[in-house]
Amino acid sequence: MNHRLPPVITLAALAILAAVSVPVRTVDADEGMWLLNHPPREILIEKYGFDPSDEWLEHMQKSAVRFSNGGSGSIVSAAGLVMTNHHIAADVLYNLSTPDRDLLKEGFYAPTPADEIPVPDLKLDLLWQIEDVTQRVKAAAQGKEPARAEAARRAEMAAIESESQEQTGLHSEVVTLYHGGAYHLYRYKRYTDVRLVFAPEEQAGFFGGDNDNFEFPRYCLDVSLFRIYKDGKPLKPEHYLQWSTEGASEGDLTFVFGHPGRTQRLYTVDHLRFLRDVHLPQRLRWAWRLQAKLEAFSGRSPENERIARDLLFGVSNARKAWTGQLESLMNPRTIAIKSRAQGRMTGQYTRINPAGWADVENAFADIRDSLETYRKIYTRQQVFKVRGKLFEHALTLLRLGDELPKPSGERLREYRDSNLDAVRQTLFADTPIYPDFEAELVASALSRMAEVLGRDDIIVRSVLRNQSPRERAEEAVRASALFDAKMRRRYAALDREGLLEHRDSMIELARALDPEMRRLRAVYEDEVESVQHDAYNTIAAAWFAVDGENVYPDATFTLRMGFGTIAGYTEPNGNEVPAFTTIGGMYRRSALWNSEKPFDLPRHWAEHENDVDKDTPLDFVYNADTIGGNSGSPVVDREGKVVGLNFDSNLYKLGNNVRYIKNRGRAIAVDARAIIEALRNIYGADRVVSELLSE
Amino acid sequence: MNHRLPPVITLAALAILAAVSVPVRTVDADEGMWLLNHPPREILIEKYGFDPSDEWLEHMQKSAVRFSNGGSGSIVSAAGLVMTNHHIAADVLYNLSTPDRDLLKEGFYAPTPADEIPVPDLKLDLLWQIEDVTQRVKAAAQGKEPARAEAARRAEMAAIESESQEQTGLHSEVVTLYHGGAYHLYRYKRYTDVRLVFAPEEQAGFFGGDNDNFEFPRYCLDVSLFRIYKDGKPLKPEHYLQWSTEGASEGDLTFVFGHPGRTQRLYTVDHLRFLRDVHLPQRLRWAWRLQAKLEAFSGRSPENERIARDLLFGVSNARKAWTGQLESLMNPRTIAIKSRAQGRMTGQYTRINPAGWADVENAFADIRDSLETYRKIYTRQQVFKVRGKLFEHALTLLRLGDELPKPSGERLREYRDSNLDAVRQTLFADTPIYPDFEAELVASALSRMAEVLGRDDIIVRSVLRNQSPRERAEEAVRASALFDAKMRRRYAALDREGLLEHRDSMIELARALDPEMRRLRAVYEDEVESVQHDAYNTIAAAWFAVDGENVYPDATFTLRMGFGTIAGYTEPNGNEVPAFTTIGGMYRRSALWNSEKPFDLPRHWAEHENDVDKDTPLDFVYNADTIGGNSGSPVVDREGKVVGLNFDSNLYKLGNNVRYIKNRGRAIAVDARAIIEALRNIYGADRVVSELLSE
Repeated sequence: MNHRLPPVITLAALAILAAVSVPVRTVDADEGMWLLNHPPREILIEKYGFDPSDEWLEHMQKSAVRFSNGGSGSIVSAAGLVMTNHHIAADVLYNLSTPDRDLLKEGFYAPTPADEIPVPDLKLDLLWQIEDVTQRVKAAAQGKEPARAEAARRAEMAAIESESQEQTGLHSEVVTLYHGGAYHLYRYKRYTDVRLVFAPEEQAGFFGGDNDNFEFPRYCLDVSLFRIYKDGKPLKPEHYLQWSTEGASEGDLTFVFGHPGRTQRLYTVDHLRFLRDVHLPQRLRWAWRLQAKLEAFSGRSPENERIARDLLFGVSNARKAWTGQLESLMNPRTIAIKSRAQGRMTGQYTRINPAGWADVENAFADIRDSLETYRKIYTRQQVFKVRGKLFEHALTLLRLGDELPKPSGERLREYRDSNLDAVRQTLFADTPIYPDFEAELVASALSRMAEVLGRDDIIVRSVLRNQSPRERAEEAVRASALFDAKMRRRYAALDREGLLEHRDSMIELARALDPEMRRLRAVYEDEVESVQHDAYNTIAAAWFAVDGENVYPDATFTLRMGFGTIAGYTEPNGNEVPAFTTIGGMYRRSALWNSEKPFDLPRHWAEHENDVDKDTPLDFVYNADTIGGNSGSPVVDREGKVVGLNFDSNLYKLGNNVRYIKNRGRAIAVDARAIIEALRNIYGADRVVSELLSE
Repeated sequence: MNHRLPPVITLAALAILAAVSVPVRTVDADEGMWLLNHPPREILIEKYGFDPSDEWLEHMQKSAVRFSNGGSGSIVSAAGLVMTNHHIAADVLYNLSTPDRDLLKEGFYAPTPADEIPVPDLKLDLLWQIEDVTQRVKAAAQGKEPARAEAARRAEMAAIESESQEQTGLHSEVVTLYHGGAYHLYRYKRYTDVRLVFAPEEQAGFFGGDNDNFEFPRYCLDVSLFRIYKDGKPLKPEHYLQWSTEGASEGDLTFVFGHPGRTQRLYTVDHLRFLRDVHLPQRLRWAWRLQAKLEAFSGRSPENERIARDLLFGVSNARKAWTGQLESLMNPRTIAIKSRAQGRMTGQYTRINPAGWADVENAFADIRDSLETYRKIYTRQQVFKVRGKLFEHALTLLRLGDELPKPSGERLREYRDSNLDAVRQTLFADTPIYPDFEAELVASALSRMAEVLGRDDIIVRSVLRNQSPRERAEEAVRASALFDAKMRRRYAALDREGLLEHRDSMIELARALDPEMRRLRAVYEDEVESVQHDAYNTIAAAWFAVDGENVYPDATFTLRMGFGTIAGYTEPNGNEVPAFTTIGGMYRRSALWNSEKPFDLPRHWAEHENDVDKDTPLDFVYNADTIGGNSGSPVVDREGKVVGLNFDSNLYKLGNNVRYIKNRGRAIAVDARAIIEALRNIYGADRVVSELLSE
């Protein structure tokens, strides 16, 4: 499942990472994650004879949904039904579960509207308006040194967001596109009363588990349904998608509308080497380690297994995606291709603008230098991250105390006014927190610090005091009051001094770590990120000069449009892989593995084997340009009708963060017909089927 | 299962690691891995009123068996039946399996002698004679600088071994004890015609898998039986152990005879910090990574799962053991205790021998300096290790060509004359080699090199050429002729020039890596190991001076005697853990986990649930001092009768490589009564039961 953002990406981190977004130039085949206010009309007309009307685009835009937990979705009924993947619903199902009611494992269906379950801490956003604010943001930074220019841009963006929110009441975010090429103000309708309607068993959504993840042929019903409520009643949306009962066929053109998270397609070659030699190996090291820790924790009891499952899925998923990205970069041809493209660009740019050559060369050198700085703090910055809800709540409370007294534009970016509601929603959400699990996560993180930096590192010693990592973690967890949402609410109302008087054990731990976390973040922001923003600004301008305006920006977890045809492919060993699998295929694959985990049949599938039409197409592959964040994106035909639900990519496509991979690289979707067939004949969810199919 | 040596330990590595073996001073409780020619008589008499006779000790010594794959065992019948753990038999079962006959998973029983299966590449050693050669080895090194002294010692040891082997026909090894305190020549009767008689399903031997590994209460029938043949007939041993039908009870004194692999009990405090901050974190990083890689490989098909199972077990097992060791060292009290002991020793020694104080301080400083050197090459040396049978065969062939022309004493230690038969037995053993698996292991190792050193490291580039790690590995594996044992035999007959003419793709890969591997090894041997040998020699003498002769050497994978009482313990949370589990307990634990992996019942146990006496004791805990290598050791009573079979330690004991852990630390054994009950009523192995019980 590459389409949910890795769980490591907090909104704050996203903002940081997304900021390095740059234009991509050579458009190939069905390449492109296009802005909806800048659609690839020429390509669509030339290649497919299809010219999307403004109405069609607006309809798609306003039917598309952004999930605050890192995925995409779409409104699919007149009563506010929202479709996304099962794996996007997974953390919701997890948070709604108890030892006695395991919704993640068993699935859920609300037979009547009254049975729909309110979801804590989930925000669904509909992109309502886009405004170009490039001039204003750039003007604020005019003539300043990198670090100060960056601060000025941030302050201006915060001001724009606040003004917009005040004027329109819409949730407002300034998005950095083409880095420095453009700043767009995105205004969203935000909904927080969201209820769970349907989810299959995890075993149906994620059949084959980690084994089959990122593989094809594939047999997953990776779907779930929510409903947006407004003023206590189902939303009557202005736009929603119609359902295609006949589905699509091999060779058909499809469109995908979703929120791809991050790509690095215009990274310089040095920057790609950094990904290859520093970033990805370190991220993988983290994932291998945490996976082993979580598996050990899970092995202690069935209840532990339930508690760790959602995070374990996220880590395994990220691990497999990063492995593919690293394999792609380890292939010297990847660097060679990017190197040639970079050489071509600089050569052409020098001919167009001989005077600008030196600036571009300097920009490349600045990136290189910034990465040298980054390399020095990278490991240290990584190991000062601690996972776990309790620690995150503690850090949020501590930082609210530190940040709120400052003007919005000078705060850590995630604490700016426009984001405070979101921060508080998460902080106050009454989702379960499990002491043993929190202790495990904190102990693991503290031990990692000592493993990597040495137990005698001065900060490690001050954090651990005279305790082992496990003892220190146990102490911080067991004595903390932050398990209780009411206490968190009370603490959030205090100022810094009032908060610290309570000496909450977990806040004390956060306090021991925060100075070093902030110091490293400041080095990153001032000496790495801001330098890169300025340098990529110059490089982006050169790309524009050479390749013109027919480019799309790197992904930023904002709404994009992709397109592509449904098509099978040929494996390197010559095997033909057909474009579609069927429901019957899941039964056969389960039998091949003797129904052993993770190939055991989902309970309802085992019970209704004779009721279901096994010839129904289940999953299909198509060659649109997608990446993590696109999970849950609707796949539609020329009429805008739903023919599928995007949920994954195959292994061949995993390197597409760096370049669009045409050969064998495929996105994977659940077929719309399987969704109807399963809802009707496996889950008996007739109420929902009628709703989806009504005009 | 901490008692099999981690799979990373080749015999060569063992020789190196075991070399740093030093005396341990403060004897506590049932502490000690005692030499059989230096038994702890005083302690046994004082604490247990038991004085082992010379006959009793000789009988135990000559009944004990050393398994060449890293475990222990014992002769248990007049017809050469040898008992060890299932997990010590695991690699044998793995090598005897095919896609159609999975002995590791399904188990095996030979109903008649003719059905017993010959095992390739397994050597069983009985320790027959011990001779003190300390004076001779020390004399050879007299007055030389560390690196040269070390070379002289090695040459002398090789000469002693060759002479002994020639004179007695017994396999001869000089063992470095108390490092520099003593060198003993061990002569073994070595048997290579070994046949498989019985093994239960893996699920019985390793019930609960990684989840229950190193835990108690425990429910494993971790036993297997082999038979030694001589001249084509079952061996009639001079000594073998009698079976106790009544078993042992809580509070009983027991003895364990086996081959503990390595301990680090007299490491200096700096050396322990090195374990904590460098060695263990790096080994764990390796284990987490390889475990993830192997699980991904296994997930691709049931056959892949079978192929990777043995190695995956080894890696998971090592991971869990190292995790426990690291947790123990991360606890500041561990270092504090060792630090106090070291301070006490130097203080007392200074009083005894004021003139010697400076030498001891210098020795501590030398260790510290050697570790600084080691730290610099540690990571690099680790990543130049490549796993996989094919690569190991290639490296052996290449090095045979390089080493054989040199005098025995000047070769890499594992290629000295006394070890050549063993090297060739492994090289020529016709055990299955799976191309996909080999490619996976080599690709993983090559990728690791690039991840850790950077893809642009000069040697990484020369090894990978212009290929990705996977491509390079595929090329080396697919074109190699070394899959075929006959070809390996042919190649082994060639000299270096003749060998290289064939340009075998895997030998070429080994050739690309070997210069750096040798360079790093030379740095290690000349600047780390030899310095440490000399320094520990001085430190050991100081310990002797302070604590007298009543000490045992650190473990060296040679025969030792341990002892202890059978005793339950109290968990930190107050729960009482009884000393014994029962056969019925396995059925109950399986039910608790809904028979889900790894808690599904073994096939025969499911079929014979009504035939077996569920009250039979299955496993028990006792507080003898054991460690990896002790797997398969017989546990006997005062009369020397078998009451159990050692197979594991509990989590609390995992830090006992560094110090004996009294509180809650326990060794775990299979109860002798469960072995009989299961053989008789679950596996119908009556022939073997009669043999075990006959006087």
